[in-house]
Amino acid sequence: MSTQSTNESAIPGYAYGAVGHSPVTLDELQALKATVMFGEEDSALLHRAGELLGDQVEEILDVWYGFVAGQPHLVAQFSQPGGGPITEYLQAVRARFGQWIRDTCTRPYDQAWLDYQEEIALRHTPAHKNETDHVHSTPVVPLRYLIGLIVPISTTVRPFLARREEDPAQVDAMLQAWIKAVVLQVALWSRPYAREGQW
Amino acid sequence: MSTQSTNESAIPGYAYGAVGHSPVTLDELQALKATVMFGEEDSALLHRAGELLGDQVEEILDVWYGFVAGQPHLVAQFSQPGGGPITEYLQAVRARFGQWIRDTCTRPYDQAWLDYQEEIALRHTPAHKNETDHVHSTPVVPLRYLIGLIVPISTTVRPFLARREEDPAQVDAMLQAWIKAVVLQVALWSRPYAREGQW
Ligand code: HEM
Ligand code: HEM
Repeated sequence: MSTQSTNESAIPGYAYGAVGHSPVTLDELQALKATVMFGEEDSALLHRAGELLGDQVEEILDVWYGFVAGQPHLVAQFSQPGGGPITEYLQAVRARFGQWIRDTCTRPYDQAWLDYQEEIALRHTPAHKNETDHVHSTPVVPLRYLIGLIVPISTTVRPFLARREEDPAQVDAMLQAWIKAVVLQVALWSRPYAREGQW
Repeated sequence: MSTQSTNESAIPGYAYGAVGHSPVTLDELQALKATVMFGEEDSALLHRAGELLGDQVEEILDVWYGFVAGQPHLVAQFSQPGGGPITEYLQAVRARFGQWIRDTCTRPYDQAWLDYQEEIALRHTPAHKNETDHVHSTPVVPLRYLIGLIVPISTTVRPFLARREEDPAQVDAMLQAWIKAVVLQVALWSRPYAREGQW
């Protein structure tokens, strides 16, 4: 399938299927899916979205990276503290980010997926940030920006869907499924940020 | 204006303008607004949304409360630990929740607003939860549900807007402004949940 066409093993630092076990249970995932109203039909809609977005991933990343580059408090998270952006860091993460779009659309949300969510979470926090790419950037992506980025990551996808699907109702449905998937993941990624017993 | 028609001082526990100072600065708020792409036009769209939603607030609350009531892990936050829902708690919060819809649409996002955001945040955490209504419910609304609820709180508003506005493009624009406002607030509310230095 076109959405799986990237050679994953060629993406430096991408470790799907080869990370630690998530402390989050599948039952907890289930409750969270219900909270974001994520159902079976959303998996199907995401698969279809993955087909439409598959060959537009680089363009989507251009938009997102442009957004991050334009905001000092965001680009700082890819920079030397007090210094400029680390080009290799931005590029290495970009490749994994592209794969994440494909994974969000096509992977089953099972134990392996849950485990990698925890790893992505940790990579935004002092536990694992900078480690994968051997860089010396800021120690943590602030939680408020992680949550705030839900908006641009969600809404900027619409024109890319609309380019390949004429029916606005179908575009809406796919966008809704995408938004649910993004909020679901940000909720999972908030885990290592939370104080004991408050996640 | 119809959206301000409720007599605020008659809402038990509603303390807008009479709470502590937020530790979040207006500059931090500004950066967060940029992150969720919130601009001047969104304030205008929210005002208009407030006019359309003003007399539908109770119906919107019916939908949201129905949603919460249907999920055990959510209704538990309004319940005695291990027991049933506390009716007076649900009702008291409902009145403030209705006012919050109006505030989100019509208040300027200034220092007083920022201060009350911090108070709402604290009311979801052990710092202030249960205090206002003198109840003995769970000590904290888990952060993951706070984030997850962004989806139902956002998307369920669409039909109420569409009922009063024919132009789908206008409905979309108001809904987008609403989503930004909700994500902005949840990002602010995540502050007391976060570990030191990670918010
Ligand atoms: C909805 C919000 C976000 C999404 C969906 C997202 C997605 C991702 C993904 C998929 C990765 C790569 C994961 C991997 O290694 O396989 C990543 C890493 C990263 N993200 Fe985010 N991200 C979000 C918010 C943010 C924000 C607000 C920032 C701040 C600029 C940010 C900065 C970074 C950085 C610096 C890395 C590299 C971490 C490392 O050192 O490994 N992210 N993000
Ligand atoms: C987008 C997400 C959410 C929004 C917009 C929201 C909104 C609000 C508002 C406006 C209030 C009243 C604030 C005041 O006292 O003036 C409130 C209180 C409350 N909310 Fe939320 N809420 C959200 C998520 C949740 C979730 C997921 C739960 C879990 C069921 C929850 C449970 C409660 C409870 C129990 C209170 C009363 C707290 C107290 O003891 O004072 N909320 N919420």
